[in-house]
Amino acid sequence: MEPVPGAAHNTPHRASDLIRDQMARVEATLLNLPELQPAELRRAVEAIVKSGGKRIRPTVTLLIAGLLNSLDNERIIHLASAVEMLHTATLVHDDLIDGSLMRRGEVTLNARWTPAATVLTGDYLFATAASLAAQTNSVRVMNIFAETLSVIVAGELQQQFTDWARRSTRDDYFRRIYAKTASMFVLATTAAGVLSGATEAQMAALLDYGRDLGMAFQIMDDILDFTGEQAAVGKPVGSDLRRGLITLPTICHIESHTPDARIECALRGECDAETYDALIAQIRTSGAVEMALVEAQKIAGSAKRALAGFPDSAYRATLMDLADYTLQRNT
Amino acid sequence: MEPVPGAAHNTPHRASDLIRDQMARVEATLLNLPELQPAELRRAVEAIVKSGGKRIRPTVTLLIAGLLNSLDNERIIHLASAVEMLHTATLVHDDLIDGSLMRRGEVTLNARWTPAATVLTGDYLFATAASLAAQTNSVRVMNIFAETLSVIVAGELQQQFTDWARRSTRDDYFRRIYAKTASMFVLATTAAGVLSGATEAQMAALLDYGRDLGMAFQIMDDILDFTGEQAAVGKPVGSDLRRGLITLPTICHIESHTPDARIECALRGECDAETYDALIAQIRTSGAVEMALVEAQKIAGSAKRALAGFPDSAYRATLMDLADYTLQRNT
Repeated sequence: MEPVPGAAHNTPHRASDLIRDQMARVEATLLNLPELQPAELRRAVEAIVKSGGKRIRPTVTLLIAGLLNSLDNERIIHLASAVEMLHTATLVHDDLIDGSLMRRGEVTLNARWTPAATVLTGDYLFATAASLAAQTNSVRVMNIFAETLSVIVAGELQQQFTDWARRSTRDDYFRRIYAKTASMFVLATTAAGVLSGATEAQMAALLDYGRDLGMAFQIMDDILDFTGEQAAVGKPVGSDLRRGLITLPTICHIESHTPDARIECALRGECDAETYDALIAQIRTSGAVEMALVEAQKIAGSAKRALAGFPDSAYRATLMDLADYTLQRNT
Repeated sequence: MEPVPGAAHNTPHRASDLIRDQMARVEATLLNLPELQPAELRRAVEAIVKSGGKRIRPTVTLLIAGLLNSLDNERIIHLASAVEMLHTATLVHDDLIDGSLMRRGEVTLNARWTPAATVLTGDYLFATAASLAAQTNSVRVMNIFAETLSVIVAGELQQQFTDWARRSTRDDYFRRIYAKTASMFVLATTAAGVLSGATEAQMAALLDYGRDLGMAFQIMDDILDFTGEQAAVGKPVGSDLRRGLITLPTICHIESHTPDARIECALRGECDAETYDALIAQIRTSGAVEMALVEAQKIAGSAKRALAGFPDSAYRATLMDLADYTLQRNT
């Protein structure tokens, strides 16, 4: 598909025009699950894969391939599918770990099934992601894939052993969101670079773009947890903090206020609901959310600058717009 | 290491002589875990990896490499380590799924930690196994690895949705133990074949050997659950049946008795402890265990015959002895 001349300011809608055919093939690949019996199991796994959210990770993979003129490479479809499947697998285990009963406005597997079936369904999706990654027939892509999986899981696991004081620091927060989110965007961009024959200089730029886009995306997610409405995000405002997850708005609030007993008890995850309500209202109005947003804007700007060395094209413009879109979305 | 002339009847002790250096390197590779913090987490993961059992899967991989004159291939060490790490990962999730509190005479992670930490530790070991497999730098090995992971997990997952009547059939039992155990032995043998440049005819023989050795090994495991002493296997006699797991001795018993209410209630997993005690005692003495053993002997014989086409060597003799050892072990 040729870039549209003069389409310098693409929207995410424009992104879907540029890669419509390829994304349809990714969707078909995601649903081509090796024979699963019985039908109840198959339907449940299909529903998880279909519920799918924004498909932002495979979108990034496909646009990078477009940027590097290799969108017609069949292996890119397998890679984009592997990345989305890996993301989906982590969500299933996350819901189990968090005890979440709702995601994307739908009841989670965890709410309906035994922990055993949920653990195994996540494992099955991990296995399927690994199979898709292996279908790229690239040893280097497989290495990046396996390394990313290690980073994601080690990050979450270490988090289980980190105390609240440490988790209240920027340093820990940024390490954590790199492992949780940005690492998968780096997989999406750099593995696409490998399959597209990117130079090492281009690979470095793709790493920077993927990391910064992912960091900005996760910070915005964490901001939306404070500002979004329940209907839009499918969970109550401040739900992260209520379950002891300390994110950038809370950290900005801590940094600009003298310590008080209420904050400390919230960070320990030991507050009653009313105290959480009051603290969350305060974080929403104290300027902490704006401070976090400034951080996200800085990082999104850095993502866009990482693409400066690539020739101008509709793909590059769309990838840049994606960084802006990350900050403008409200879900 | 040269085969010892005339060593036609090697024992598992002999196996450890033939591959001593390589197995030491596998052990070192297994413990070379990417930086894990904090120390408590690292110690726990190391303890799981060290607790290690018989290391039969990497032993098989190394002996196959010896059979095909490629024991000095560095990639074989990565493969043997990947296979054992994959096995260890499945054990961690199995213990969580079964709610097991003891394994190999040790308290499981599941008994000591939160489900979250246990799920994530299993995921971390899966990721580490995938990284090790990727280090073989073989696309075909990576494909076999990913496929094996899919088979194992899909098998366990489907089991969660299979009713007791279906699970009481030989057909379901053999499919189940292929997915659970034999598939990983097939990975151990065929991936070693790939890295050793085996011909396609040799690959077919390696598949047969791995499958049959794995099937015999699992049937023997299931027999030992009925005949072993608590001290030797680290769990009470008949523990599989007590938690609703229907294995070959039970199936042989069902096949040779007219249906009665007690058996059916046990298969449903709804008996009281005394009824289980009585039924397990009956299975132990009814000839069912012997019938299962005959089946294991037939399959072990088939494993040995699969190696007939390879040139005679200490490695081949040891692989054949391994099939016999599988039937003679008491833990």
